[in-house]
Amino acid sequence: MSALPRQPEPTTEGLTQALARFVAELPQCDVPPAVRRETRRAMADCIGAGLAGARADVARIAAQARAGASGACALWGREERASAGDAALINGCAAHAHALDDTHESMRGHPSVPIVPAILALGEEINADGDSLVMAYIAGVEVGGRLGRSVNDRHSQVGWHTTCTLGAVGAAAACAYLLRLDETRIRHALGIASSMAGGLRVNFGTMTKALHAGLAAQHGVLAAQLAAGGLTASPVSLEGHEGFLQLFCDDGSHDAARALQSLGKSFEVTDPGIVYKRYPTCSLMHALIDMVLQAGAAGVLGSGEGVELRCEISRRLDSARARAWPATGLDAKFHVEYCVAVAAYRGTQGIQDFTDDAVMCPQVRAWADKVSLSQGKNFPDGNGDFAVLTVLRDGVEIFRQSQAKPFGHPSMPLSDTQHEDKFMRLATTVFPGGRAAGLWRLLSAPQLCSARTLAAALSAR
Amino acid sequence: MSALPRQPEPTTEGLTQALARFVAELPQCDVPPAVRRETRRAMADCIGAGLAGARADVARIAAQARAGASGACALWGREERASAGDAALINGCAAHAHALDDTHESMRGHPSVPIVPAILALGEEINADGDSLVMAYIAGVEVGGRLGRSVNDRHSQVGWHTTCTLGAVGAAAACAYLLRLDETRIRHALGIASSMAGGLRVNFGTMTKALHAGLAAQHGVLAAQLAAGGLTASPVSLEGHEGFLQLFCDDGSHDAARALQSLGKSFEVTDPGIVYKRYPTCSLMHALIDMVLQAGAAGVLGSGEGVELRCEISRRLDSARARAWPATGLDAKFHVEYCVAVAAYRGTQGIQDFTDDAVMCPQVRAWADKVSLSQGKNFPDGNGDFAVLTVLRDGVEIFRQSQAKPFGHPSMPLSDTQHEDKFMRLATTVFPGGRAAGLWRLLSAPQLCSARTLAAALSAR
Repeated sequence: MSALPRQPEPTTEGLTQALARFVAELPQCDVPPAVRRETRRAMADCIGAGLAGARADVARIAAQARAGASGACALWGREERASAGDAALINGCAAHAHALDDTHESMRGHPSVPIVPAILALGEEINADGDSLVMAYIAGVEVGGRLGRSVNDRHSQVGWHTTCTLGAVGAAAACAYLLRLDETRIRHALGIASSMAGGLRVNFGTMTKALHAGLAAQHGVLAAQLAAGGLTASPVSLEGHEGFLQLFCDDGSHDAARALQSLGKSFEVTDPGIVYKRYPTCSLMHALIDMVLQAGAAGVLGSGEGVELRCEISRRLDSARARAWPATGLDAKFHVEYCVAVAAYRGTQGIQDFTDDAVMCPQVRAWADKVSLSQGKNFPDGNGDFAVLTVLRDGVEIFRQSQAKPFGHPSMPLSDTQHEDKFMRLATTVFPGGRAAGLWRLLSAPQLCSARTLAAALSAR
Repeated sequence: MSALPRQPEPTTEGLTQALARFVAELPQCDVPPAVRRETRRAMADCIGAGLAGARADVARIAAQARAGASGACALWGREERASAGDAALINGCAAHAHALDDTHESMRGHPSVPIVPAILALGEEINADGDSLVMAYIAGVEVGGRLGRSVNDRHSQVGWHTTCTLGAVGAAAACAYLLRLDETRIRHALGIASSMAGGLRVNFGTMTKALHAGLAAQHGVLAAQLAAGGLTASPVSLEGHEGFLQLFCDDGSHDAARALQSLGKSFEVTDPGIVYKRYPTCSLMHALIDMVLQAGAAGVLGSGEGVELRCEISRRLDSARARAWPATGLDAKFHVEYCVAVAAYRGTQGIQDFTDDAVMCPQVRAWADKVSLSQGKNFPDGNGDFAVLTVLRDGVEIFRQSQAKPFGHPSMPLSDTQHEDKFMRLATTVFPGGRAAGLWRLLSAPQLCSARTLAAALSAR
């Protein structure tokens, strides 16, 4: 017999099993109508972002790289077709290309972009109905969000792109739901996806950031397909020794119990809920941009003569922001002074302000010189969105405001009209107005259509 | 202007740029004939392992999952074809399925299995000649090995599967070489692959371990294809803030300078060199298995009556080994007592000893009860292979031996005949003897044939 101690086998139900069981038992679960409604809204928002990104470089390059392969699934706003995994990759890149897709506080990242492209592509392949898509989305956000609760904030702070790490596991859960895998195979799918999770924040400000979203979606499809075929993984891939929690939360502060509180009773889709983005920039600065736009609309900024904008920002934004003056439009999305300057100068903030040409604009540069940043003192703990804007003219304070959350946060929701306006603005970048409006009707109907109907409406063929 | 400090831009040449430049300038580099010879040997060894794994569950399931997609590239020992990325995935799974593929001390993992399937598939697509394949392999092992030098041992110890993390970046370098990308695009390819790197050791003992190898190969192909198309990543993805070194070596012990010593002068393929495996089990126990087989062949073990095998093992093996009695053949590959028992009882150790049925064998279980393990005292620092075997009969020591490295290590190389024997034993699991012998002639010729010739010889069509 061995003289060295053997490790005890885990005996209580762990995180992996609990989440797998949740997904397996979801069809019997009483999902509130508000959760389903919010899911349809989030899916529509993600699709709008994906249409706007369909012609972005990252989506074009990803589609080109897979051109040798063929498949049956639609690419949103494009003419080509691809396999389910490749379609998830390419549509995921598109939907994150402009960073206009939603965010989520448990994930500290983007909930929809790994999931929606994955379930629409896989759903098209297997002919899933609309209700299955809705439930699959709920399962995916639940797993991504719960996993986020157990490793954040450390996981996010240390430099992982949560959209790609947590997102891959969430997308796998969604796809496993769609394939109606049993609890054991769902557990394998979560384990396989855990080994696919990665994504370094060093690549923020480059096209690889959007690629992360596509990879998460692709990995979700592939993990579920492999688990469906019988590929095995550890039954304790999340909480086990050398597992997800341990490697992606390196200081041991992860807490699986925290993640599992009220599982199946409250839903991540509405609690804490989906945050919708109005600007194609880092979401942590959106409350600040809201205030700059308000100040501008109220005439506070004038021509900018003698004006100074003092911005107090959170520690989280300070650690995520770009420091050097942006060389590209993608860089600029993380540059607070640039984004504030755009809002002050243009009175808006849209995709057109984040091209490689736009960052050369001398007027925006001049406005940026009026912007000063400091880390806010005594800011509310753990709220990365909080910001204070003080405007001075000739050294005299003429405006001062603080805001805790951006418009689009569940506490400051967008109206139905604002949702529709955002979708139409984005969808009409690739489709004529009539077709975009038809798509919006399809997506905002009380009952979601089948994946194949949706795919036909999204393909540019 | 900002009141918060801006981060300095890196000014000296970093690891990412140095490795990208090495790959870009490799065609002008004087690669010694011994390095090229060893490369062809390593490629042949990897292909043998891949043929033996062609019918393993993991390869079959991976091939099935991608069945909806089509492509032009060969699957080794199988009839289907796939895209370059999917072929890399499936062949990579096959080549690691039985854990018979080579290892490497800088990587603390498997050097060939992420690279050979990647460059053969991509090479088939672009019609690469044999010399390009050889040079691409050299580039890939160099990058994977150098990156390993900068993050190991911490990276390996903490629980990452180096074959999947370092392997993805190495495979991307190899594929970028094959596509003849310029230095800037190679740098992007390394950054893209860095964001694809992952793979948790919690999944050792399951099919996901072999999947890791396939994923690394697939990611290498995709990263290079995307970089070729113009997809961007951070120019300091490896050494930058929130980059590869920082996130994959969490205690800050990484050292890029250590990695770059004598880059372009000494080559990882021969220094420290490729280690060839003789048994389909965790390589850290191979020196021990060598000794058990020698003791058995010398008649020391007899029928086992009254015999005790005391095994002193390294700390690294102790932390990697499986504790609970194996439930599956894959589990058993990491169970030292089981593997020692197989060697003692059978006098050999092959694929057939690591099926789910084989682990139920009562005679092997009886031999395992004669095995005791302890962590060796005063073992040579940093040598995970070192082992001591003491055999007692009726309490009396009758055999004692120590071994620092397994047969197959560059310090104890296999003969040409042993290499050929291993290849033929593995290749004949899918091909008739004549065809396998023809393949060996192709692979051991002084000049490697083109990727398309090789692909035609490897496909079971």
